[in-house]
Amino acid sequence: MGALTLRLPSLTSLSSAAAAAALPRYHFCRQLCAPLRSVSAAKFSVQSSTVEKEIAATPPEIEPASLLPRLQLEKDRVITPRSQDFNAWYLDIIAKAELADYGPVRGTMVIRPYGYAIWEAIQDYLNVKFKETGHSNMYFPQFIPYSFIEKEASHVEGFSPELALVTVGGGKELEEKLVVRPTSETIVNHMFTQWINSYRDLPLMINQWANVTRWEMRTKPFVRTLEFLWQEGHTAHASLEEAEEEALQMIDVYTKFAYEQAAIPVVVGRKSKVETFAGASKTYTIEAMMGDRKALQAGTSHNLGQNFSRAFGTQFMDENGERQHVWQTSWAISTRFIGGIIMTHGDDAGLMLPPNLAPIQVVVVPIWKKADEKAGVLGASSSVKETLQAAGIKVKLDDAEQRTPGWKFNFWEMKGVPLRIEIGPRDVSNGSVVVCRRDIPGKQGKVFGISMESSSLVAYVKGKLDEVQSSLLENAKSFRDSNIVDVRSYSELKEAIAQGKWARGPWSASDTEELKVKEETGATIRCFPFEQPEGAKKCLMTGNPADEVAIFAKSY
Amino acid sequence: MGALTLRLPSLTSLSSAAAAAALPRYHFCRQLCAPLRSVSAAKFSVQSSTVEKEIAATPPEIEPASLLPRLQLEKDRVITPRSQDFNAWYLDIIAKAELADYGPVRGTMVIRPYGYAIWEAIQDYLNVKFKETGHSNMYFPQFIPYSFIEKEASHVEGFSPELALVTVGGGKELEEKLVVRPTSETIVNHMFTQWINSYRDLPLMINQWANVTRWEMRTKPFVRTLEFLWQEGHTAHASLEEAEEEALQMIDVYTKFAYEQAAIPVVVGRKSKVETFAGASKTYTIEAMMGDRKALQAGTSHNLGQNFSRAFGTQFMDENGERQHVWQTSWAISTRFIGGIIMTHGDDAGLMLPPNLAPIQVVVVPIWKKADEKAGVLGASSSVKETLQAAGIKVKLDDAEQRTPGWKFNFWEMKGVPLRIEIGPRDVSNGSVVVCRRDIPGKQGKVFGISMESSSLVAYVKGKLDEVQSSLLENAKSFRDSNIVDVRSYSELKEAIAQGKWARGPWSASDTEELKVKEETGATIRCFPFEQPEGAKKCLMTGNPADEVAIFAKSY
Repeated sequence: MGALTLRLPSLTSLSSAAAAAALPRYHFCRQLCAPLRSVSAAKFSVQSSTVEKEIAATPPEIEPASLLPRLQLEKDRVITPRSQDFNAWYLDIIAKAELADYGPVRGTMVIRPYGYAIWEAIQDYLNVKFKETGHSNMYFPQFIPYSFIEKEASHVEGFSPELALVTVGGGKELEEKLVVRPTSETIVNHMFTQWINSYRDLPLMINQWANVTRWEMRTKPFVRTLEFLWQEGHTAHASLEEAEEEALQMIDVYTKFAYEQAAIPVVVGRKSKVETFAGASKTYTIEAMMGDRKALQAGTSHNLGQNFSRAFGTQFMDENGERQHVWQTSWAISTRFIGGIIMTHGDDAGLMLPPNLAPIQVVVVPIWKKADEKAGVLGASSSVKETLQAAGIKVKLDDAEQRTPGWKFNFWEMKGVPLRIEIGPRDVSNGSVVVCRRDIPGKQGKVFGISMESSSLVAYVKGKLDEVQSSLLENAKSFRDSNIVDVRSYSELKEAIAQGKWARGPWSASDTEELKVKEETGATIRCFPFEQPEGAKKCLMTGNPADEVAIFAKSY
Repeated sequence: MGALTLRLPSLTSLSSAAAAAALPRYHFCRQLCAPLRSVSAAKFSVQSSTVEKEIAATPPEIEPASLLPRLQLEKDRVITPRSQDFNAWYLDIIAKAELADYGPVRGTMVIRPYGYAIWEAIQDYLNVKFKETGHSNMYFPQFIPYSFIEKEASHVEGFSPELALVTVGGGKELEEKLVVRPTSETIVNHMFTQWINSYRDLPLMINQWANVTRWEMRTKPFVRTLEFLWQEGHTAHASLEEAEEEALQMIDVYTKFAYEQAAIPVVVGRKSKVETFAGASKTYTIEAMMGDRKALQAGTSHNLGQNFSRAFGTQFMDENGERQHVWQTSWAISTRFIGGIIMTHGDDAGLMLPPNLAPIQVVVVPIWKKADEKAGVLGASSSVKETLQAAGIKVKLDDAEQRTPGWKFNFWEMKGVPLRIEIGPRDVSNGSVVVCRRDIPGKQGKVFGISMESSSLVAYVKGKLDEVQSSLLENAKSFRDSNIVDVRSYSELKEAIAQGKWARGPWSASDTEELKVKEETGATIRCFPFEQPEGAKKCLMTGNPADEVAIFAKSY
């Protein structure tokens, strides 16, 4: 029903779809070469020579006179509206909310404390889940002999264009150049081969939190950087079935994390052969729809089969005394996920963080005008802060005197803090506070007269945080669902993609045809979703019977 | 009094001290070039070609016949006694306890789960302390333009021989070669320069957990590896006094950590000019005495003065509107600390871990002979495990059936687990357990008849863990104190060093004389300890007045 409604526009604009099809190289080139970029987007790809000073750092009101012109300029510089230029908005948020900055080397990123705190929240959650599912953390060296990378054929093909190579160490040219790890399957297998003897050493299930390097040409803070932080899980099993179960278990951990912590309603599924990880037999993925409706691959879990164990001779003695190659998985989530959070929930006012991952869940803003009100308001604000902190809520009291309450409201909204508590002289005499939701703008998100009494305030705030968390997920869900179009033909697919939407349709065509879609529309198969419609299906491209629907979309 | 007693031996063995002085080149060369090394020590410096299989991984009793000869060999291979060959003992422990393994690239190390769990315990403690003292975590890129390293004169002099350089990226020769960070002062200052405008941006206090690379020629697992993990704190302040206060605060955090968590009674003090960090004005250090009485520099905190801020132009506008260079600190503790823990507490039986950092604090070993005893013993063991776990104690139940209890006792002693609980059929009927301390061998460390009743068992175990923790510290303290000799002359110093001890004596001589001591004895000034004796002092070398005593020792 919805599918039918959504398909209609494609009929009324066949001409523009045809025009788009006539310019395949242009579309493809836009995707790969990005000839046109906004000024702010371009900054990340060149060495940052101009200094970005944020207004937050130095209050212009009391700045020495010599600095005033520069700051005045910045005061006027607001965040580009999301609706106007999504990319500029994204980069503005990252700068203004002090999430990250450009490193001195092209494409590298400095993760600033506020951005890093989101990463720490991601780590805290996943680390517990990884341990609960039987994995131990460890650490592998980041320098990998070049010969290792060459051992698995499709792996070297996939990664060799992106490698950073160390050729000099301690002042001397090295005999064998070293790869700065782009991922660790090869060195992991080199070690697993030494640690695994018999079936009793299996399953071997480990994880590492590490930095990785991929020499990317087009970079964008968090989404794609030369160096990024991630976790990479690596496991070895005695059977294909066990490896498959593990790969599925971990994509499920990621899916739950995305829904429950990040409030991102990812679509979980299997990658097409073309999009499968270099060296894997199967890749499972969680795909998130960003605010501009482009897809972001937010986490992957690979069933590696015996590809690496055969390349590295990773064998075990089975229960019958036969030597067998182990079956393996690997899975990863990276700092890219932070980009996904920004682009899923943010709005024109700035960042909007899900309470479960927010470094600051509640900001308390005291408001007073007359000198004799100050002590009472600050005292109450401070005691509210203590109360919430003692209850395990991440709370900040903003009692800076050089800023107006209005400035603070805007600032903490821009920083994405889920709840704001306002306390003025009248609230103090009433023993109550005002609670404002970041996700509901203006008066509608404001509730007056919430009691300051500890236990009721804590319960109220916790409840509100839960509401915001659910509400972010629900909003993202409806946005996602209203932007996935069911298609039955290639022309419907093209129309959906041209409208910036995701196209979902039956697919059993060849790799070549998949690549043709990419070239002609800029869209790729994001996944064959686990959730499949019932009934017989015909391939949207060939009309042949198809087992599954695939989702096509443009992506980051 | 103690000093007098300890000085006596030096008088009775002047001749051997003179003999040592006659061979200065030999001593110096031993320190720097290590021409003679034991077979196990040498392994770490060459690519590990032979596979080290640990007996723990596969029980020989039920191994397929084909593997028996190899495993038999390893079963016979015990840990080298500490007293016989300290270095071989150290490497054996690392292999047998599965703390680490050799990476494929010379001098690199794989930190295995049991070793990494110690690192996680170190991180958990320090992370809280860093945040309590006002620092935020963040992350800087690891690739640093080569030109940055050259900006601070003594920094480049100190680090240039140890750099790993990336010269190729994405298949192309780079225009400017990139340094893989050996430490981050330069890139930190590059960014601080962009973030700091006015005195209101100060202090800026951050920390990062990261990997660093130093192209070391002589490597040893944990102690000195090509790549290692660490935290590096970096701060910027408005005055020298504030920077000094911060540098002292952080060395104090490290000192408390060493004493209270690692049970290592470090000597805290200031480095000599010769030993100061490349680029620092002052370096504070914690020096630990290992079981072979060599010193290990276990953590450092630097007052960087304005050295980096001048090199990078890191300035702020002070309250009078004047531009000033910031005053800075940096401070670090690394995975080297794990080597310090091993070499401080371990004994002939293996590792001995301080309860506060032990990945497993208590191991429960069920003991039964007859089939009808099994269920009762296993049930009781399992319930003891649950009880302790619920109380927040890190406990492991070793119910593997293919191992004898005796084998398990040795194994978990070797792994350094502080407490063992034994539960046999008689214990089950008595409702009691046997508790054995790792640090007191044999029957003396064994207490029978400890009630299984939850609350009393938890209290007993917690009390015992505290006792072990204190006892490790006390033992290390007496060992340290009995091996520091107060010296008044160079000949007394040489005598003490020749005996493998630390020499403490007044020092106000020149850098040249300090280097002469190093060349002639192999010992360096470890620090001028904060704890100084009262009264007038005369330099042990020159007889001139001296303000302070210094501690000389051979070191790792």
